[in-house]
Amino acid sequence: MAIRHIVTFTFVEDATDEQKNAITTALKGLPELIPEIKAFTCGLDAGLSPGNAQYGLVADFENEADFRTYAKHPEHQKVIAENIKPILATRVAVQLSL
Amino acid sequence: MAIRHIVTFTFVEDATDEQKNAITTALKGLPELIPEIKAFTCGLDAGLSPGNAQYGLVADFENEADFRTYAKHPEHQKVIAENIKPILATRVAVQLSL
Repeated sequence: MAIRHIVTFTFVEDATDEQKNAITTALKGLPELIPEIKAFTCGLDAGLSPGNAQYGLVADFENEADFRTYAKHPEHQKVIAENIKPILATRVAVQLSL
Repeated sequence: MAIRHIVTFTFVEDATDEQKNAITTALKGLPELIPEIKAFTCGLDAGLSPGNAQYGLVADFENEADFRTYAKHPEHQKVIAENIKPILATRVAVQLSL
């Protein structure tokens, strides 16, 4: 059962563009460090619709075990602790079984 | 600029499984009716993580114009009105430019 991991974020008011862009840089480094990631897209909202969240991420895994490896992986946890949490306001996640 | 449209939902307490599954049936009919959709995955959360939203959708489009055609398409609006809105509690969306 392949898993599609979907996450959206909103940020605190005083989050800087530099902090937001650093999230993308850090996240985009993960597929090289975590081979269980089969596909990975992330980035700031494109500003096409009012009321959207500010950030989105979609990551695909071959199975649940690989998703869990990613979820607790030290490199992933490091991005969460160093880049995301400091400016995070809200986080919504869903995992789809494909 | 390709667009990845990401949406998550939570449902009202008394939403039935039948109503939730009808969303998937209706949404999965859209790619045939709306050729601008290049890739489309949707479904109920797999229950792997506590605190997740209940539903997720990821749809890809070749460009912003195709995304907007989808967004206002009568068949898409019909699914929103008939299947989603009656049981919708919260909706979060993001569009990524790929």
